[in-house]
Amino acid sequence: MKKENVKTADGLKIIPLGGLEQIGMNITAFEYGDSIIVVDCGLAFPEGDMLGIDLVIPDVTYLKENIDKVKGFVITHGHEDHIGGLPYVLREVNVPIYATKLTMGIIEKKLSETEDILKKVRRKVIKFGQSVNLGDFRVEFIKTNHSIVDAAALAIFSPAGIVVHTGDFKVDYTPVYGDSIDLDRFAELGKKGVLALMCDSTNAERPGYSPSERTLEHTFDTIFGEHRNTRIIIATFASNVDRVQTIINAACKFDRKVAVEGRSMVSTMDIASELNRLSIPDNTLVSIDEIKNYPAEKTVIITTGSQGESMAALSRMAAGTHRKVTVGAGDTVIFSSNPIPGNEKAVTKIINELLFKGADVIFQDAHVSGHACQEEIKLIYSLVHPKYSIPVHGEYKHLTAQARIAHELGIPKENIFILRSGDILNISEDHAEITGHVAAGGLYVDGLGVGDIGNSVIKDRQRLSEDGIVVATMVVDSFFFNDTATTEIYTRGVVFVKESEELLDEATRILTESVTALYDRGEADWGRIKGVCRDVLSDFFWKKYKRRPMILAIIMDV
Amino acid sequence: MKKENVKTADGLKIIPLGGLEQIGMNITAFEYGDSIIVVDCGLAFPEGDMLGIDLVIPDVTYLKENIDKVKGFVITHGHEDHIGGLPYVLREVNVPIYATKLTMGIIEKKLSETEDILKKVRRKVIKFGQSVNLGDFRVEFIKTNHSIVDAAALAIFSPAGIVVHTGDFKVDYTPVYGDSIDLDRFAELGKKGVLALMCDSTNAERPGYSPSERTLEHTFDTIFGEHRNTRIIIATFASNVDRVQTIINAACKFDRKVAVEGRSMVSTMDIASELNRLSIPDNTLVSIDEIKNYPAEKTVIITTGSQGESMAALSRMAAGTHRKVTVGAGDTVIFSSNPIPGNEKAVTKIINELLFKGADVIFQDAHVSGHACQEEIKLIYSLVHPKYSIPVHGEYKHLTAQARIAHELGIPKENIFILRSGDILNISEDHAEITGHVAAGGLYVDGLGVGDIGNSVIKDRQRLSEDGIVVATMVVDSFFFNDTATTEIYTRGVVFVKESEELLDEATRILTESVTALYDRGEADWGRIKGVCRDVLSDFFWKKYKRRPMILAIIMDV
Repeated sequence: MKKENVKTADGLKIIPLGGLEQIGMNITAFEYGDSIIVVDCGLAFPEGDMLGIDLVIPDVTYLKENIDKVKGFVITHGHEDHIGGLPYVLREVNVPIYATKLTMGIIEKKLSETEDILKKVRRKVIKFGQSVNLGDFRVEFIKTNHSIVDAAALAIFSPAGIVVHTGDFKVDYTPVYGDSIDLDRFAELGKKGVLALMCDSTNAERPGYSPSERTLEHTFDTIFGEHRNTRIIIATFASNVDRVQTIINAACKFDRKVAVEGRSMVSTMDIASELNRLSIPDNTLVSIDEIKNYPAEKTVIITTGSQGESMAALSRMAAGTHRKVTVGAGDTVIFSSNPIPGNEKAVTKIINELLFKGADVIFQDAHVSGHACQEEIKLIYSLVHPKYSIPVHGEYKHLTAQARIAHELGIPKENIFILRSGDILNISEDHAEITGHVAAGGLYVDGLGVGDIGNSVIKDRQRLSEDGIVVATMVVDSFFFNDTATTEIYTRGVVFVKESEELLDEATRILTESVTALYDRGEADWGRIKGVCRDVLSDFFWKKYKRRPMILAIIMDV
Repeated sequence: MKKENVKTADGLKIIPLGGLEQIGMNITAFEYGDSIIVVDCGLAFPEGDMLGIDLVIPDVTYLKENIDKVKGFVITHGHEDHIGGLPYVLREVNVPIYATKLTMGIIEKKLSETEDILKKVRRKVIKFGQSVNLGDFRVEFIKTNHSIVDAAALAIFSPAGIVVHTGDFKVDYTPVYGDSIDLDRFAELGKKGVLALMCDSTNAERPGYSPSERTLEHTFDTIFGEHRNTRIIIATFASNVDRVQTIINAACKFDRKVAVEGRSMVSTMDIASELNRLSIPDNTLVSIDEIKNYPAEKTVIITTGSQGESMAALSRMAAGTHRKVTVGAGDTVIFSSNPIPGNEKAVTKIINELLFKGADVIFQDAHVSGHACQEEIKLIYSLVHPKYSIPVHGEYKHLTAQARIAHELGIPKENIFILRSGDILNISEDHAEITGHVAAGGLYVDGLGVGDIGNSVIKDRQRLSEDGIVVATMVVDSFFFNDTATTEIYTRGVVFVKESEELLDEATRILTESVTALYDRGEADWGRIKGVCRDVLSDFFWKKYKRRPMILAIIMDV
């Protein structure tokens, strides 16, 4: 039925498969004739109401149904929300991957952790300026700046025209590693004529420019200068390779040894150094075990946990449960990060704990964003001057903020498209229109299960988390029909066990009475008897406690 | 045992009973000789990990144990975190309440909603500048500014010296209603000599001054001027009486009718107007039912829900489930509020929904804080120049920020005290020291239960919310001992019911086998059999799904 919506292949189709409903999960299909290419393949982390869910990965039903057309994944950069879905999706959509050097390094590490999939997948490293031909498409990788090295924008050449996809980017004229964004190439493409621009919206609400990563040199110089007598612990994103470089530079300048703590950060750093994407002077890095051999004031620990993640290294240090690092007076802890929306409370909790332990905590102004602000977005639009604008990356409010910018720059409202997950945008020089919809969105990953947890399970968990569960078991002997032999009631997550003994006795009595009355009236339908059990107990807990626990009534025949 | 810690009454004791562990729940006991007075009696809203909890109220065991000494509650202002605990606490600690006019009006409304307690409690309205004698104490109410009218600071006169408690405050030279803060009185007290200052820390991290409420006049003028052709909906705190006044002023200027939506806001406004704490020109207010009789562009709706509260009026408007107000294109929605930490995600969700419905949404710069920033805090310190500093109101990081300010202003570190819930600070001109600790902190309110939910219940709920529950019932006939008659397994919140039928069959088979094997070996201890059931099922779900549902094993004898 879904397939009927997919019209004949008369133009270029752009289909976000992650998109709006699952923030942060970036995956977009481009289709022309018999060719489909897929830009990025991210995962999302669960929202607060997705109880017990570990991850959300994209629903790629559409790709599976059109597997013969799919030519490959082109990946913009090595962050989880752009590559994290690959280990799951490749199992079903095994097509080649194209990415720049560090991005591919991170992908390979990730794939090597899951079974044998790495060996089964074709991969090709692409240099900036190079193109790869994929069916009716040619995709060129263009150098940009972001909080990770080797981030790329993509120029997607199709018979219908050129689409420029920025990936996550900022304009950094003075990056700490490598070159500045290739603005020349954006300008050249603009001169050729660009059909559509898909531009990063994350910071579209912020006026001005995102400061250069290099401005943090001065920040760290100042902080290091003011804290010459303490150990320095710096928390940042495990994936922020550029920030690690900045911190290492500062540590060297102040003659401090650096240890890195947190599995994901160590892993990313290993790959980045191996691929020469991090430059670490000799005798700078020491292991977390060795660092205690140096005077505290001659050391820096770079750690994960800047978002208050409860299992990350910094949280364990703050809680006093880290096996190797004890934080206290004489430590300066720097958050080189801003809380991602939703993490504010968790971050504050850690800050409070660290302060309480006597540490000095710096949590403002030691971070710059890796995403373009309004003036940078305007710059890209002005170089590329696309016919159509398709804001990407960010929540609905960010996308609308970019839509406003695009409109201010002269793009007519009818040429601006905010796409929802599964929308098919049919686009050509003459016309652009949403012509249909395919299955798309998120699949929950919980433990080893992928997609076996749906909304009904989540709703049960929500109900359980609010008011707990009451289990009532009754053993009846259907041979001596009118006898309710045993009734027992158990609760979990409802009230204190001790205080509730009396309560449970009362509930048991009421339940037994009701069921006996039913029997006496000759009721023989067990479904109906269970229904009455539920109603009686539900009433009881509401009247007594104004609570609505889940009720599970079990009747057993012997 | 706790009581042993309470030393002889040789000085003034200051004991926070809500305090740090329960953010936002303000209640502090002052004790001298045979007199105890209590400043404020707030409640706290549950943190995200307090599953199913409605409210947190203070543990007043210490007051109950010393009920003969307790002379009364002196209340600084009418916000929930300062008065919300009263309906619960007064049931056990029924002593007189002293407060300013609007504060008392709000308290009386609140008490009238709970049984008959209003009639049983003595109350006295105090004017600014007036004092009340309470045993060894005299308490003077001093005019301040805050986001609600009639906010008071307290000068607490005791034989040990004067303690100045600011309550929640800011310095507003041009408030929209009533007078500016009585800085003269702070200065006079400073000249007399103040033992300790307990000053609001909420904004102690923010440099500069909190702008006057009146600066929003200009803000609203601009917004109203730019949106002459749309309906305007403004969300703010239900308790922010001053903001409602500012909005009404703007609406009158632009000749718009005003309707108020949201039960708590209507209630607060009714009290405020009745007590002449709001000045509403005739023919301005209309009911939410009447407002549709006016052209949309001639109306303003003031509503609750600025924090993204899921049941509040604005959330229902955004979700399209509000019975009286439908939001869409042609509406301008203004958030006249900042998200309280922890609510960012919920607020953003509403903003995205409103934008998606086509509304114009303004969520920046239409709010000023009701709390003093650094320069205001310094001003109060400089007027009062206390011997001791006891930062209050805020999280640990805010309290330490104020401690830093106090130290910068010349107060020695050993004279600055950040108190934890239950700490007894013994304080006099010569010496100040934490000399003991009393039972204090928070009690959970869930439904009708107060304090019957403890950490074990919350932990059960957390576990249930993560991985659900598996209930295994076995009916055994202990007469024919070795026969396991019936085994059934039920799950809730674990996996899809449909997909799991096969799974449950397998689990049932494995379980039956294990239990039969136990019987065959002659095991007769039901506790041990249950233990094996739990282990077998736990293993099964871990191996199969990497999930750890709660296991409830029930064995029934017939």
